[in-house]
Amino acid sequence: MRYSHNLIKSNKEAREFDTVNATLLQKGVFIDQTMAGVFAFLPLGLRVLQKIEQIIREEMDTIGAEVFLPALVPTKLWEQTGRFDTVDVLFKATPANAGSAKRNDATYVLNSTHEDTVAPIAGKYMLSYRDLPFAVYQIQTKFRNEERPKSGLLRGREFRMKDLYSFHASDEDREAYYEKAKEVYVRIFDRLGLGADTVIALASGGDFTDDYSHEFQTKLDTGEDTIYHDEKEDVFYNKEVASPELQKATEGIQVSEVGNIFPLGTKFTEAAEYMYTNEDGKQQPVYMASYGIGSSRIMGVLVEKFHDDRGIIWPANVAPFTVHLVGISGGDDAVTAKAEAVYEKLTAANVEVLYDDRADVSPGEKLGDADLVGCPWRAVVSGKTGDSIEIKQRTSDAMELVTIDDLITKLT
Amino acid sequence: MRYSHNLIKSNKEAREFDTVNATLLQKGVFIDQTMAGVFAFLPLGLRVLQKIEQIIREEMDTIGAEVFLPALVPTKLWEQTGRFDTVDVLFKATPANAGSAKRNDATYVLNSTHEDTVAPIAGKYMLSYRDLPFAVYQIQTKFRNEERPKSGLLRGREFRMKDLYSFHASDEDREAYYEKAKEVYVRIFDRLGLGADTVIALASGGDFTDDYSHEFQTKLDTGEDTIYHDEKEDVFYNKEVASPELQKATEGIQVSEVGNIFPLGTKFTEAAEYMYTNEDGKQQPVYMASYGIGSSRIMGVLVEKFHDDRGIIWPANVAPFTVHLVGISGGDDAVTAKAEAVYEKLTAANVEVLYDDRADVSPGEKLGDADLVGCPWRAVVSGKTGDSIEIKQRTSDAMELVTIDDLITKLT
Repeated sequence: MRYSHNLIKSNKEAREFDTVNATLLQKGVFIDQTMAGVFAFLPLGLRVLQKIEQIIREEMDTIGAEVFLPALVPTKLWEQTGRFDTVDVLFKATPANAGSAKRNDATYVLNSTHEDTVAPIAGKYMLSYRDLPFAVYQIQTKFRNEERPKSGLLRGREFRMKDLYSFHASDEDREAYYEKAKEVYVRIFDRLGLGADTVIALASGGDFTDDYSHEFQTKLDTGEDTIYHDEKEDVFYNKEVASPELQKATEGIQVSEVGNIFPLGTKFTEAAEYMYTNEDGKQQPVYMASYGIGSSRIMGVLVEKFHDDRGIIWPANVAPFTVHLVGISGGDDAVTAKAEAVYEKLTAANVEVLYDDRADVSPGEKLGDADLVGCPWRAVVSGKTGDSIEIKQRTSDAMELVTIDDLITKLT
Repeated sequence: MRYSHNLIKSNKEAREFDTVNATLLQKGVFIDQTMAGVFAFLPLGLRVLQKIEQIIREEMDTIGAEVFLPALVPTKLWEQTGRFDTVDVLFKATPANAGSAKRNDATYVLNSTHEDTVAPIAGKYMLSYRDLPFAVYQIQTKFRNEERPKSGLLRGREFRMKDLYSFHASDEDREAYYEKAKEVYVRIFDRLGLGADTVIALASGGDFTDDYSHEFQTKLDTGEDTIYHDEKEDVFYNKEVASPELQKATEGIQVSEVGNIFPLGTKFTEAAEYMYTNEDGKQQPVYMASYGIGSSRIMGVLVEKFHDDRGIIWPANVAPFTVHLVGISGGDDAVTAKAEAVYEKLTAANVEVLYDDRADVSPGEKLGDADLVGCPWRAVVSGKTGDSIEIKQRTSDAMELVTIDDLITKLT
């Protein structure tokens, strides 16, 4: 993809925000803030988000079927679970003006999560013991009326999330499925570059359950959460549920949440009057759990973890492009032609290239932007590189002169 | 993908709805109605929707860069274009309960379209003549407070849409881009199976423009729109703008809208105070246009066009699976094992297979479901097929016995 004519820019004059991810993602014009807690994903940012979501999708497909549930639902769905009045991040949707009210003056809920919506759907079709267990997941936009959204992509009023819902004939079966889901989560965080630093902590169940929920927490000095390690039991606890003795006895670990799992018992299936028929023809309760990963939040966490004072250092699997190609022509058409040829050849070889073809930007600014954007490789074509291309990795200052064929071999 | 444990069902008891697409898509459990005009996309339906959207994405990538804009935006964005009080399908989002109001009592707009949101973003970054023209597009959920949503996926309160926005230094340049966009639209409708029957009609500009808008209309006996052909000028007009003489002189053609283009002039860029700097350093107005395709609506239109009394007949490019594999074991484990082996081999060969592995459903019901679901090929493994597989196309009753290798060759 070319810089020119594509809303790919840098905005190094952008102010410093409260967190590194908010600052770097906006200086790099990955995202643009529409209002507090709500961002537009521009071409560079959407590519990263889509790569994160595709990794999640591929892994989720091994344990569930993808669906796409509505954002806008009748209030009845939230009233019958008792949550319409208690979930304090809930938005409702109503007509915006007199003309709209005249058309239809009903009030709806904008889903902040989908337990209340999915249980009645499951209860319409999956009624036999032969249907259980099963799980469905979606990757979708969620809406939450956060009090003080901040921290860039870490806490938003509108954000992206993968949520999976599993349904079981017994709580033991739910436990067995949880072990499979845990393995899948570990694979996802590995592929996203967060693997080694990510642990499971027990936390409060909030509006969902009286049991512990399970949080996937990644170690991060600037993380919003603190967990404590009970070494005897080898269990991590979120500070909200860690016993005062543990908090005195051990040092807290700063972490950021990247996923969570809620065992839900029969709370939502009972509200939906969803029972299954067992082998003896008897009606039995259905056990449920939900499993979240905030995909846009993960994008923010990755920037918090992987950056230096020059910019972002994306893990290769989620980088917007593999190579950032910088043309430095100094007005020499022959150099421009060479850079164009390198771009065409790399693209033809299916290498993902971001090509800085801007004519009105200085070499220094282009090289600075390449560091800011944070692709794994940088390739420079200039009057000095002759028939070769100067390449370097984002994490190293060691440069190398290579031919186009060598470069293609290296990157494919 | 297997039927069992995957929320893939048929619901032949579902009542007849007002339109064929609503009836067949709900009997086939592609979609499930959450409320009037709002549907959940279940596994079969989401696969079709994703295929439609991927075709649109691939073609749009040739003329624009993909972005993802917010659904929830400040009312200010709609007030500054004068549309907050006039667009009568607009929803607003407010706190749902006292707790939510205590957190944050602001009112937002739920975007029904994104002209008002994208112009200020473009105006922040794309300020030089060197940046123009450019275009961004997104594939996203839209919210509209329809008075009487009906017709299944044809008119919803929540629906999926591709919207592209282009920005130009002059209205002539906008015209030139329009010709390119038109070609891309024609390619999209061709790939979706709607090509030959789709024409461009001039229509009202609505809230967007005083000019004509351009609608892509596909011929459909049950279509909601009527167009008239002015043979002298060889131009089609929507009935809302067709001159009474033309309506008297020619017969109306029933059609359904599958895309539209609005030339917007400077209405939205002026409201956003978005000007560009020309080569002489002077501030100049930016011309804009928007280009929509309703992807979920297209799914409904395809069913309206392509079905028979047994069910849906998906065009191959958007079918949920290439082949619907039906195992009819009659309780014979050897037949089940053979069906399983065929499923594994087809899957390993990257053929998209829907495998009806249900043990509690009769052969007749399985074959009926295959017709209802409408994949291009049906393959049956039973006690009668021996070492072979019985295959037929959805649109033909001619059956053939083939080996697994023959079948793989045929389908890849």
